[in-house]
Amino acid sequence: MKNIAVVLAGNGVFDGAEIHESTLTLLAIAQQGAEYQCFAPDVNQAHVVNHITGEEMPETRNVMVEAARIARGDIKALSEYKAADYDAIIIPGGFGAAKNLCTFAFEGPDCKVNPDVENAVKTTVEAGKPVGALCISPSIIAKVLGDVTVTIGQDKGTADAIESLGAKHVTTTHGEIVVDEKYKVVTTPCYMLDANIKQIAEGASNVVAKILEIAK
Amino acid sequence: MKNIAVVLAGNGVFDGAEIHESTLTLLAIAQQGAEYQCFAPDVNQAHVVNHITGEEMPETRNVMVEAARIARGDIKALSEYKAADYDAIIIPGGFGAAKNLCTFAFEGPDCKVNPDVENAVKTTVEAGKPVGALCISPSIIAKVLGDVTVTIGQDKGTADAIESLGAKHVTTTHGEIVVDEKYKVVTTPCYMLDANIKQIAEGASNVVAKILEIAK
Repeated sequence: MKNIAVVLAGNGVFDGAEIHESTLTLLAIAQQGAEYQCFAPDVNQAHVVNHITGEEMPETRNVMVEAARIARGDIKALSEYKAADYDAIIIPGGFGAAKNLCTFAFEGPDCKVNPDVENAVKTTVEAGKPVGALCISPSIIAKVLGDVTVTIGQDKGTADAIESLGAKHVTTTHGEIVVDEKYKVVTTPCYMLDANIKQIAEGASNVVAKILEIAK
Repeated sequence: MKNIAVVLAGNGVFDGAEIHESTLTLLAIAQQGAEYQCFAPDVNQAHVVNHITGEEMPETRNVMVEAARIARGDIKALSEYKAADYDAIIIPGGFGAAKNLCTFAFEGPDCKVNPDVENAVKTTVEAGKPVGALCISPSIIAKVLGDVTVTIGQDKGTADAIESLGAKHVTTTHGEIVVDEKYKVVTTPCYMLDANIKQIAEGASNVVAKILEIAK
């Protein structure tokens, strides 16, 4: 049975991992006959956002502790990730991917990538194993790999910022995936489009299906 | 298009709404051609639990503010719920259902039910509309209605506590639902069994299908 590492950026669309994208990635993995293990970097969130008002809250939360809510407690520090132990890695979206896993939401193309995230992506690619990225997470992949072909949907500003990193952006709509054959990177826009939860399930399912197909 | 109210008890299995059960309830509603509106009581959580260690954290979090993470910000205070505006109501599980929506996790059959939750369940039943409850949430329904037939799966202690409220408990396994024809209450065990995420999707889908079938 194939085993997929899923990297969570917290727990909640505005400051962490998008919950529907994360949950539906886990569901797609299980429904398609594979197993998953959740990971997250053991660092504090960039900030905490009240998801009703959109305002910052005067709190400190840890990305891994919050991500454990999605993982029902079964989560490992991303520093422990070894590409040799997994068949692929998938990074769901949410602002946390661009705030906690890297700083793309704050600094655009000048962003920094969390060292554990960078190491996980690089070692997985070097091992010839597939990497999946949903929503805004392809920005991380573009920053780490450079000349990779990805999609974040249709937002021109974000696509331009990603292309300025040396990547190629392909415009897509709901549920569509883009496959970079060289790096084995599979991306889909999810909530980077004005999507409903059914469309998120389709996008996540399509990414997982392609990843399981090309995983050795 | 039918519109289902979904009542969330926070965000995370150990102190809030179980995230997979909540997300997969929303997915099932959308996949079966209906709409949803999330609600939560505007009260503080009973406590905050670190989902890695299981230990209490010295924090205060609001049930509705945290539940908004699952709802992507689109949530209403349960005090605003009017049975006339919806076709049914569904309460996913997680310890939050038994800690924040009622106190069953702390006080068993002597529990108190949050007044907004009690009012929502009672007025929905009085309007002849269906009520769904997943996992441990049937304990709320048993406390409010008394002589209702429900399932929480196979845990004898919990089943006995529910029967001591005047309810009848039916033992079930993964994905199975129990329907109380008199009250139009539909229940399924979900993570009250040692389940995987595929089985949660099946249980949620079966509850939603039955509810849409019997909703007028």
